[in-house]
Amino acid sequence: MTLRVGVLGYRFMGKAHANAMARLPMFFPDAPDVERGVLVGRDEAALAAAADRLGFEEISTDWADVVESVDVFYNLGPNHVHAEPSIAALEAGTPVFCEKPLAPTLDEAEEMAAAAREAGVPAGAAFNYRFVPAIRYAKELIEAGELGEIHHVRGRYLQDWLVDPEAPWSWRNDAEMAGSGALGDLGAHTVDLVRFLVGDVARVSGQLTTFVDERPVEGSDETRPVTVDDAYTAQIELENGAVGTLEASRFANGHKNDHTIEINGSKGSLRFSLERLNELELLSEGDRGYETILVTDEDDPYVDHWWPPGHVIGWEHTFVHENYEFLSAVADDGAFEPGFEDGLAAQRVLAAIEESDDRGEWIATE
Amino acid sequence: MTLRVGVLGYRFMGKAHANAMARLPMFFPDAPDVERGVLVGRDEAALAAAADRLGFEEISTDWADVVESVDVFYNLGPNHVHAEPSIAALEAGTPVFCEKPLAPTLDEAEEMAAAAREAGVPAGAAFNYRFVPAIRYAKELIEAGELGEIHHVRGRYLQDWLVDPEAPWSWRNDAEMAGSGALGDLGAHTVDLVRFLVGDVARVSGQLTTFVDERPVEGSDETRPVTVDDAYTAQIELENGAVGTLEASRFANGHKNDHTIEINGSKGSLRFSLERLNELELLSEGDRGYETILVTDEDDPYVDHWWPPGHVIGWEHTFVHENYEFLSAVADDGAFEPGFEDGLAAQRVLAAIEESDDRGEWIATE
Amino acid sequence: MTLRVGVLGYRFMGKAHANAMARLPMFFPDAPDVERGVLVGRDEAALAAAADRLGFEEISTDWADVVESVDVFYNLGPNHVHAEPSIAALEAGTPVFCEKPLAPTLDEAEEMAAAAREAGVPAGAAFNYRFVPAIRYAKELIEAGELGEIHHVRGRYLQDWLVDPEAPWSWRNDAEMAGSGALGDLGAHTVDLVRFLVGDVARVSGQLTTFVDERPVEGSDETRPVTVDDAYTAQIELENGAVGTLEASRFANGHKNDHTIEINGSKGSLRFSLERLNELELLSEGDRGYETILVTDEDDPYVDHWWPPGHVIGWEHTFVHENYEFLSAVADDGAFEPGFEDGLAAQRVLAAIEESDDRGEWIATE
Amino acid sequence: MTLRVGVLGYRFMGKAHANAMARLPMFFPDAPDVERGVLVGRDEAALAAAADRLGFEEISTDWADVVESVDVFYNLGPNHVHAEPSIAALEAGTPVFCEKPLAPTLDEAEEMAAAAREAGVPAGAAFNYRFVPAIRYAKELIEAGELGEIHHVRGRYLQDWLVDPEAPWSWRNDAEMAGSGALGDLGAHTVDLVRFLVGDVARVSGQLTTFVDERPVEGSDETRPVTVDDAYTAQIELENGAVGTLEASRFANGHKNDHTIEINGSKGSLRFSLERLNELELLSEGDRGYETILVTDEDDPYVDHWWPPGHVIGWEHTFVHENYEFLSAVADDGAFEPGFEDGLAAQRVLAAIEESDDRGEWIATE
Repeated sequence: MTLRVGVLGYRFMGKAHANAMARLPMFFPDAPDVERGVLVGRDEAALAAAADRLGFEEISTDWADVVESVDVFYNLGPNHVHAEPSIAALEAGTPVFCEKPLAPTLDEAEEMAAAAREAGVPAGAAFNYRFVPAIRYAKELIEAGELGEIHHVRGRYLQDWLVDPEAPWSWRNDAEMAGSGALGDLGAHTVDLVRFLVGDVARVSGQLTTFVDERPVEGSDETRPVTVDDAYTAQIELENGAVGTLEASRFANGHKNDHTIEINGSKGSLRFSLERLNELELLSEGDRGYETILVTDEDDPYVDHWWPPGHVIGWEHTFVHENYEFLSAVADDGAFEPGFEDGLAAQRVLAAIEESDDRGEWIATE
Repeated sequence: MTLRVGVLGYRFMGKAHANAMARLPMFFPDAPDVERGVLVGRDEAALAAAADRLGFEEISTDWADVVESVDVFYNLGPNHVHAEPSIAALEAGTPVFCEKPLAPTLDEAEEMAAAAREAGVPAGAAFNYRFVPAIRYAKELIEAGELGEIHHVRGRYLQDWLVDPEAPWSWRNDAEMAGSGALGDLGAHTVDLVRFLVGDVARVSGQLTTFVDERPVEGSDETRPVTVDDAYTAQIELENGAVGTLEASRFANGHKNDHTIEINGSKGSLRFSLERLNELELLSEGDRGYETILVTDEDDPYVDHWWPPGHVIGWEHTFVHENYEFLSAVADDGAFEPGFEDGLAAQRVLAAIEESDDRGEWIATE
Repeated sequence: MTLRVGVLGYRFMGKAHANAMARLPMFFPDAPDVERGVLVGRDEAALAAAADRLGFEEISTDWADVVESVDVFYNLGPNHVHAEPSIAALEAGTPVFCEKPLAPTLDEAEEMAAAAREAGVPAGAAFNYRFVPAIRYAKELIEAGELGEIHHVRGRYLQDWLVDPEAPWSWRNDAEMAGSGALGDLGAHTVDLVRFLVGDVARVSGQLTTFVDERPVEGSDETRPVTVDDAYTAQIELENGAVGTLEASRFANGHKNDHTIEINGSKGSLRFSLERLNELELLSEGDRGYETILVTDEDDPYVDHWWPPGHVIGWEHTFVHENYEFLSAVADDGAFEPGFEDGLAAQRVLAAIEESDDRGEWIATE
Repeated sequence: MTLRVGVLGYRFMGKAHANAMARLPMFFPDAPDVERGVLVGRDEAALAAAADRLGFEEISTDWADVVESVDVFYNLGPNHVHAEPSIAALEAGTPVFCEKPLAPTLDEAEEMAAAAREAGVPAGAAFNYRFVPAIRYAKELIEAGELGEIHHVRGRYLQDWLVDPEAPWSWRNDAEMAGSGALGDLGAHTVDLVRFLVGDVARVSGQLTTFVDERPVEGSDETRPVTVDDAYTAQIELENGAVGTLEASRFANGHKNDHTIEINGSKGSLRFSLERLNELELLSEGDRGYETILVTDEDDPYVDHWWPPGHVIGWEHTFVHENYEFLSAVADDGAFEPGFEDGLAAQRVLAAIEESDDRGEWIATE
């Protein structure tokens, strides 16, 4: 059986997932056969060029048609087109994989999660950092109790592509289209990693900041208002009693894609940075300092599919792992995590941060 | 003229300041002459032994007497004995140097600051990290505009000496004696560095946590309640529009004395860690990444007093610099910063964090 | 036109190059079309399975036939089968790409280089680390004079897979099959990087060491002698007056694939490690310390083909760049560097190190 | 009993040792009482000023007189005045402490060691890096077998104060006065650490380089020839079969005082850098990566004399430890290591490196 995949979106994420699918046969020979079937978008010319480069057989400008005809539907479009096509696919019984954050509003995210529950087919949320070998290895250590009871977590996602006030306006600066700014785009990843590694968030206090209120429209004299956050900070308390701080920014000068997470437990601690994603810094019980571990050994998660110890992998490999797991679940009628429930749970935390910012007080995420 | 100094407290801080005074003649020949005059405490035997080791000429168990007879009074006792002797000294016209936090309560801190204003003599607050060469160098860079407008600040002070639930109870776990826990002991330093480097705090949201509620009393079967925080987190907004997160803990496994501060501005960024206090990581305008700078060149702050480039100094040297500046101010009738006003300002932020924790909402520090 | 490629060798290097060819269309759309035509080996069953997984159309056990029928021949077999098939291909006018070191002996390497000169078709030597973006960026900086006159170079390639004396014997421990040990396998890369970045080597002094003289044969009670070096050290003087030290080991406990190069010049310095291959540490003129640069910006070498800034690539990407350049040269009748002349030049340095070890004195590499 | 100390030399090393002696009473209360008795030099005015600042009671321009009248003699002068006064002191039965390298020539070093053997009083060689807590801790680990059998050692001492060709000529550039350049000044430290941590050197191959042949004389139009090395490299084989590379330079741009040592053994590895002297990077058996250990715990060598965990010490503290051990040995008629025999052993290695450079071949150090 070959899974025919329909993909909405052909830019950054389209390329990342097309590449991931293309690499499965050589590196994950037990993955299901996958056909990059149809690429969906609005601009036919751009679409055709992208389909050619990304290896899709067909193109379509009508997602409604596609979601019914393919075996799997990937929704990689901007946030405001996440809900409708995803729900339509699920209603047609088509497994869906959707980029993060799940939706621009909590209401839409709830509808999507409800549709997934109803459909009973795999509905994946695109938290690809769960598929970094070092993060998986961290998860195994924590589950095995190697860190003991967790006391502290710190998550930060720092970028700097907006620090120049003359950087042009884009849909990512618009509340209608993006829902939120750094909070949804970057914070969604951090919240998911916190949930994956440490547990559910009980309450939050948040702060959203916009440093530059309007930005020039490229190729014109106009400016448009920035209606989302450039940065957020948050304090959290987890259900297991751990406490933490979260933060993301598009103004952190000198940081390109610096997603870090730090965890301190009663027996050990760990630190991770996406910019050095092959490494995990680990303090084990009885050790005097953090070990810098290159998570590239044969028995490290996913590593045996790739190269010998010390031959590092890149950011894109997380998509291969993610696609392998998701498509295998589709083929085997299995379960896939993180699913829409996880997407919704992250969204609830993000919404609570926004609400906390509005009201100036702590918000329970129940 | 020789300044005769009276010092209350002869443990950790007593040793640090006695050493600092002892080293001035060789390394800061233009410092005023200082006589380690009288060491003040309650236990005569311990006091005599300490005075002998630390080079004091006399001992006294009566601070009231001492504050009137010496040229300078150092109050290095526990927090709950900061206010009364310091105020008495100031009322007697004796310059005072007081360890941080200024007092266990905001009220006392305010009385102390008022006494200092009234007295018109130097009243120093013991924020010794202002005297790290790398921090001073950072201050110069920021003041010269090298970082541009500041957007973000992150300050963390991580220790782990209480992570073992069987670690014994001490006065530092008691609200009466210590005022607060990690917040006052560690957070005071962080808040002062934020104020020194970035500016005044406009509002805060805070969270205090106690992970272990009671601890064994050493040498007995009893336990005593822990009535202070083991850790705090905070979000802050500064008057200049920068935002940040603060944190301190005595439960951060693997961290001994890890005080870090990070600042991101529109033109550059910097990072500092007390465990590598000779270094400053600096992103300058036009650079592609952080430079790791060894702040040990001849023209770096205070360095010409010590050793050639690359010959690193230690934690204790910050006390020498601090004592040099404070005692010079005393001798010259000059001004000294940080003073009690700075101690009070830091205390206001700490108190606002506590109040925010109580009330679950943001608190303006006006 | 589509280039039909024949590949001898289907293990580690076979996989690395098959993957590289497979990825060209999506990421390097201007690369020539490539057909993974025929996979060459001795064991038909293993070969068929590999061809299936690596995407080759045919298999063959007769390289002599293949080198005449394909458009390009990749020789990825063990060192002792480098010479004969490569020379046969060149004599047939077929461009050749050969893994490093070029040959187990200097004589064979010289014959290969002569055949390449004669043939006048691209003959590539597999020094893939020239194609790391950070190394290319380093090369640009050095060529632009940013480091000034070079004084020092240090190159080390540290692994630890033989530190256990019970690690089994393999062909890599045999002088007949491998030529040398760490020297040829690892040192070839280091010597090439030194030549690429700094210049030609004028003279060497070398030391070869074998720590464990015999090793167990897997699945038997026998041992076999280790007839190659476990580690080497060398001192070098370059034609431009720079001096340096080189080293490689398979006994450097804790190092998996730690290839580092450091260069100090009159204006600046740089450092690189293969285990953090997205980074370059650079001291620029006027700077006070090394900048840690993430070489993932749009205008960094090759990066625009991949992902946005901060989205790191892996070890395997160097093969994509290398294949892109080599196959483009084949398609365009262009030149490719590093070629067999570079392979030979590196080999001369390695041979001189061996000779120096034998004779206990410095050897000119003329 | 109070030890009256005579010190020849009042610049950099004079200050370092005077400070060390001054700090003993407060931090090492069981050290013998020490009187900074007489400071010896040629320029009376400069001497008087230095004595005043460094706390000496008297000055003298006649070392011959001093070595007979004091209890201990410190020879901290330039290399060419090491031998005569030290030997005179030993002949008078006065314990001697001499800066490194022991002498500008091997002959003189041998005479000094012979005099020390004859005298039977402590004769200390100033290898202060043996007294870094992290190095001592490393020594304990190695002696306890934690690293297993040692295979590799790497030692580098990098500075950059001569990289500017216009940097002025000094006695350190003159073969008569200094004996050698980077080799003796920096390499002596490295060789001693290798001997201390790993063992005796069996044979060496060396290379000395002078990048700039003459330098301007400060305050004149003249230049003077540089007759010593600006940098050296060496390969070594140790008596226990370990191999290594050594290097030092005054031209390593960006490195101020970067003395590093790396050791790989069959069970573990370690790394140390003087610029982060509170840290040791340690790979322990069973660990996956190097731990970054802050060697500031209470039970770390010498640390209990100073401050609580995480409160780092500086370069100068190594002199306090060294003076404590040496002066205690003098007071107790005990033994002190490293002694003149160690100074001589290091010198033999340095001389062999020079001879190897001359002759272009390996030299046994027997």
